[in-house]
Amino acid sequence: MIAYFNGGFLQKEDIHISPDDRGFLFSDGVYEVVRAYGGKPFKMAEHMDRLARSLRETRIDFPGIADLAVAGAKLIAMNGLGQEDSILYFQITRGVAPRKHTFPVPPVSPTVMALISPAPSSVEMREKGVAAILVPEFRWSRCDIKAIGLLGSVLAVQQAKEKGAEEAIFVRDGVVTEGTHTNVMAVFNGHLQTHPLGNFILPGVTRGVVLELCRKLGIACKEQSFRGDELNRASEIIITGTNKEITPVVRLDGRPVGTGVPGVVTRRLQAAYSEFVRG
Amino acid sequence: MIAYFNGGFLQKEDIHISPDDRGFLFSDGVYEVVRAYGGKPFKMAEHMDRLARSLRETRIDFPGIADLAVAGAKLIAMNGLGQEDSILYFQITRGVAPRKHTFPVPPVSPTVMALISPAPSSVEMREKGVAAILVPEFRWSRCDIKAIGLLGSVLAVQQAKEKGAEEAIFVRDGVVTEGTHTNVMAVFNGHLQTHPLGNFILPGVTRGVVLELCRKLGIACKEQSFRGDELNRASEIIITGTNKEITPVVRLDGRPVGTGVPGVVTRRLQAAYSEFVRG
Repeated sequence: MIAYFNGGFLQKEDIHISPDDRGFLFSDGVYEVVRAYGGKPFKMAEHMDRLARSLRETRIDFPGIADLAVAGAKLIAMNGLGQEDSILYFQITRGVAPRKHTFPVPPVSPTVMALISPAPSSVEMREKGVAAILVPEFRWSRCDIKAIGLLGSVLAVQQAKEKGAEEAIFVRDGVVTEGTHTNVMAVFNGHLQTHPLGNFILPGVTRGVVLELCRKLGIACKEQSFRGDELNRASEIIITGTNKEITPVVRLDGRPVGTGVPGVVTRRLQAAYSEFVRG
Repeated sequence: MIAYFNGGFLQKEDIHISPDDRGFLFSDGVYEVVRAYGGKPFKMAEHMDRLARSLRETRIDFPGIADLAVAGAKLIAMNGLGQEDSILYFQITRGVAPRKHTFPVPPVSPTVMALISPAPSSVEMREKGVAAILVPEFRWSRCDIKAIGLLGSVLAVQQAKEKGAEEAIFVRDGVVTEGTHTNVMAVFNGHLQTHPLGNFILPGVTRGVVLELCRKLGIACKEQSFRGDELNRASEIIITGTNKEITPVVRLDGRPVGTGVPGVVTRRLQAAYSEFVRG
């Protein structure tokens, strides 16, 4: 695949990251994942806005977001994915400098990378639903920054996988926050509920779309947190994300959620989402 | 400088990290820093034991710790640093695989790197002392793992630097835990006190040596946490680490610590430490 790296296009295999890259040494970087449907990036502007926010919060100076979005979009055509679904991955690190925790002096240019791959199908997960587990939160408290420091998520989702589950959902001080790479929603008495924005969750682009669709469809929804132990009375649980789209959780910690099959709110949202992303 | 990478020796500039390295994409790796005094690595075995523990806790499979220690030691001579003080840096990541949070299937070989550089002098900091600030803890709760996910520490110590301080000291729920790259000790009524081991602090090698020296010197010490607001009655504050060695904190949040100069407990420990590391 052709990729983008520090201003140029090249084969991904020809990208060489320096051993002094602060992304490699300090996880000093941020990222975004954008899905393209039929060759068209979905919500690129929202993802780039969030990337700009992550850069601001981490104080990585990169003025070229607009150019990066263009470069990402170009990768679709350059790799012959103009009719396909694909995943664009963007990563920006603070750059290359001898190892020292504080920001490099003088400042260095950030490392800027965009990769593309065909989108894995989420159809089966969306149709049948997945299992999830609850895990105590142990990540940092700036989960609103889409930073590459993902070891906590890696360890949690691996634990899920080994229990036959697809996602691990974090519980911080009793409260459900988000999954390792998804936002989490639950339906109580027909009302959809999800953790409010703030420093404990990523402001998910798919999350935002789902809340918008709820309003359009007349599905009652509120951004209000709920506790892990309340989930046993949820009729539906949904995880949302760029990759997972709208995926129902049908088993939680080994027990069926609601009737154990994807529920009516999930199905309405999925249908509306499918139409919206291709629209 | 000659470095070590995945089994071979090469110029550091010739190390190419893959854009798919999980260290770069997920901060999925661990590290160690070892100081060599006059060409002799100090406490190499303890550092390698801790590296092995970090690998176990993150479930990175790397059986070659002993060989890595030998390779690190070789770098000293190969780079003509046999009479100097130098810093060895070891990093191991889970390896190279297409981006997916869960561990690669089939498993891949870890990425193994050792770098060396001349040790920066810590004499001035040790002699005059440094300023530090307190910051609310916002990192993950597995600070006992020496993982490369250091963005929280980077942002905190940068904040310190911009306030004219050398270190940021974390306070979790009111309790002082550790610095961004040091352990923290305080002297109350002649007794040295430091946060007990556990998941909130790194089990510092220098910290361990200092506690050992306290016992030898008859300095009363205990591993018991203290609150940030107790520090205004500490006569001395010390930060310890491989790079900082035993460095007195003489100003905290802009106010003098004790009499504002390095105290008697600090001086005794520094003298004993200097003798010990060269012994």
